[in-house]
Amino acid sequence: MLIHTIDEVREKVKEWKKQGFTVGLVPTMGALHNGHLSLIKKSVEKCDKTVVSVFVNPIQFCPGEDLEKYPRTLDADEKLCNDAGVDIIFAPSPKEMYGDGHILSNDFLTYVIPPFFYVNKLCGKSRVGHFDGVCTVVNKLFNIVQPDFAFFGEKDRQQLIILKKMVKDLNIPVRIIPCPIVREENGLALSSRNKYLSDEDKQHALALSKILFNIKACYNNGIKDVSELSETAYSYLNNHHSLEYLEFRDADDLEEKKTADDNTIVFIALKIGNVRLIDNIALR
Amino acid sequence: MLIHTIDEVREKVKEWKKQGFTVGLVPTMGALHNGHLSLIKKSVEKCDKTVVSVFVNPIQFCPGEDLEKYPRTLDADEKLCNDAGVDIIFAPSPKEMYGDGHILSNDFLTYVIPPFFYVNKLCGKSRVGHFDGVCTVVNKLFNIVQPDFAFFGEKDRQQLIILKKMVKDLNIPVRIIPCPIVREENGLALSSRNKYLSDEDKQHALALSKILFNIKACYNNGIKDVSELSETAYSYLNNHHSLEYLEFRDADDLEEKKTADDNTIVFIALKIGNVRLIDNIALR
Repeated sequence: MLIHTIDEVREKVKEWKKQGFTVGLVPTMGALHNGHLSLIKKSVEKCDKTVVSVFVNPIQFCPGEDLEKYPRTLDADEKLCNDAGVDIIFAPSPKEMYGDGHILSNDFLTYVIPPFFYVNKLCGKSRVGHFDGVCTVVNKLFNIVQPDFAFFGEKDRQQLIILKKMVKDLNIPVRIIPCPIVREENGLALSSRNKYLSDEDKQHALALSKILFNIKACYNNGIKDVSELSETAYSYLNNHHSLEYLEFRDADDLEEKKTADDNTIVFIALKIGNVRLIDNIALR
Repeated sequence: MLIHTIDEVREKVKEWKKQGFTVGLVPTMGALHNGHLSLIKKSVEKCDKTVVSVFVNPIQFCPGEDLEKYPRTLDADEKLCNDAGVDIIFAPSPKEMYGDGHILSNDFLTYVIPPFFYVNKLCGKSRVGHFDGVCTVVNKLFNIVQPDFAFFGEKDRQQLIILKKMVKDLNIPVRIIPCPIVREENGLALSSRNKYLSDEDKQHALALSKILFNIKACYNNGIKDVSELSETAYSYLNNHHSLEYLEFRDADDLEEKKTADDNTIVFIALKIGNVRLIDNIALR
C-alpha cells in the first residue's frame, strides 16, 4: 500500500501494534535495486509488518551534490516492494516531512547531530553536513513509524556506525539490523549511483572491490601492517581513477588503525569521472 | 516506586502500555517545589500513570554554572512524589544516562540541537549550549519512557517553546502540556534557585514579577509600543539589580516584537548578587 502522509502511516502502525505485530522499517531514497531488496527481504522475513520509506532527503545532500538529478523511480519501487511482500511504502513529499515555511537550515530546524569524531573522517570530510541530515531524517522516520527493527546496508558503513551510535546515545527504542553488501558477479557493490556509470566506467569501477578483496587476501596471508596493505592498492589504479581515501578503521568507533586486526574495516572512496563511489570490507 | 535504571523503567512502562494505560512524564532536575508539584498533579489527573524523572543533567550546565552545588534532595522529592500519587520516580545516575567512557562533548556524543534562531536570544545568549543539553536529555527521556504526554512549566518559557519546536521538527509522538507559572503570594515565581537567595535578596527579587505585572497592566490600558512598555521597568530597579534582558517576543517563534499584541510574551532575566532569576508573562 502506497502512503504519502505521516498521519496515515501512524494510524496503520497503531492498528498493527494493537494486534501485537512487530514492525520493520527499511529507510531508502528509492531507486531500489537488489541491495535494497536484500534489506527488504530480511525485514519481511524477520518482522510481521514491513514499512519501506522512499524519500529523497534534501537535507543530506551537500551543496553541489546531485539532489535534483538523483534517480526517482517510484512506480518501479512500488512494484518491487509489492512483489517482496512489503505492507506499506511510505513516500512523503519534502513538504510533508519538513513543512514549507522556512528554509531547511539549522537556523530554523531542529537537527540531530552525530559526534564530530565520527563525521570528521571518510565521507564526512568531503560531504559536510551529510550525516547531520541522515541522522535527522532517520530520527524523524523512527518517530513516525516507531519500528521495532530498522534495516541498513553495510555498503554505507560509516552511516551504519553513526546511526548505531545515535540509537545508543539517544536511547532510541529501535534495533538496528546491519545487512551485508550485495555485489554484482564481477564484485561491484550495488548502488543507485551506478546508474551514472558508462559501460567503460563500470569496468574502471571494479577497482574498488578488487582493491578490497586483495587487501583482505593479504591480511589473511598474515600481512597486518596498514601501510603495507595500503600499498597493494596502487596496482589497481589508473588515470581514470581519483582516489579520495583508502583507510583502515575500527568497526565500532572509527578510530584509525596502524595495524589491521579482526575488528578492522577497510574503507575506500574513488571518483570515476564525476561519479563518486564507495565500498568497504570487514577483515574479520 | 523509586527506579534508578533505564531497563527497569522501560519494563514497567511496557507493562502499562500492554494494559492500555496512558503515561505522563514530568522531567525535573529534582529539588521539587510547588511549581513542580503543579505539573505532577496535572499529570496524575490527566494520565493513568505518571513518571517523574529526577536528573541533574550535566550537559545543560555551562562552564561556570552551578552543577556541583545545584540542590539535590532526592529523599524529600521521593516523599513529595509518593504523596502526589506518582507511579515511578526515575532517578538515574549520570553514568546510567551517558555511560562512563568519553567526555560529554559533541566530539563523542550525539546531540539534539535546537534551531539557532530559537537559542541565540534571551537565556541562550548567556547560557551557550544550555538548550542543546536540554533538548538532548529530554529526547533521551522521551525515548526511555515513551510517554503520551510530557509536562513542562511556563516558567522556563524559552525552553518550552524550543521543546515544542523539537517535537514538531522531529515528529516525536509525545504531546507537550504547558503548565502555568506558580508564584508565591508576593508574586515571586517559584524556582529551585530561590534557595540561593537571602531574605533581603528575596525582597529585591520581587522586582521581576512587579515589572511584568505592571507591563501587563499598561498593555491592558492600551499601551502597545514596546519601548514605552519597557521604560516602565526602570522604576522597579535599584543598584542590587543587574538586568540581563527585558524583551518582548512572539509566543510561538520568539520573533522580536516592536508592538505588543496578544501573542506577545514579556521575558525578563535579572541578577541579584550571584543569583540569576528569570520570569515571563503572556500579554494575552
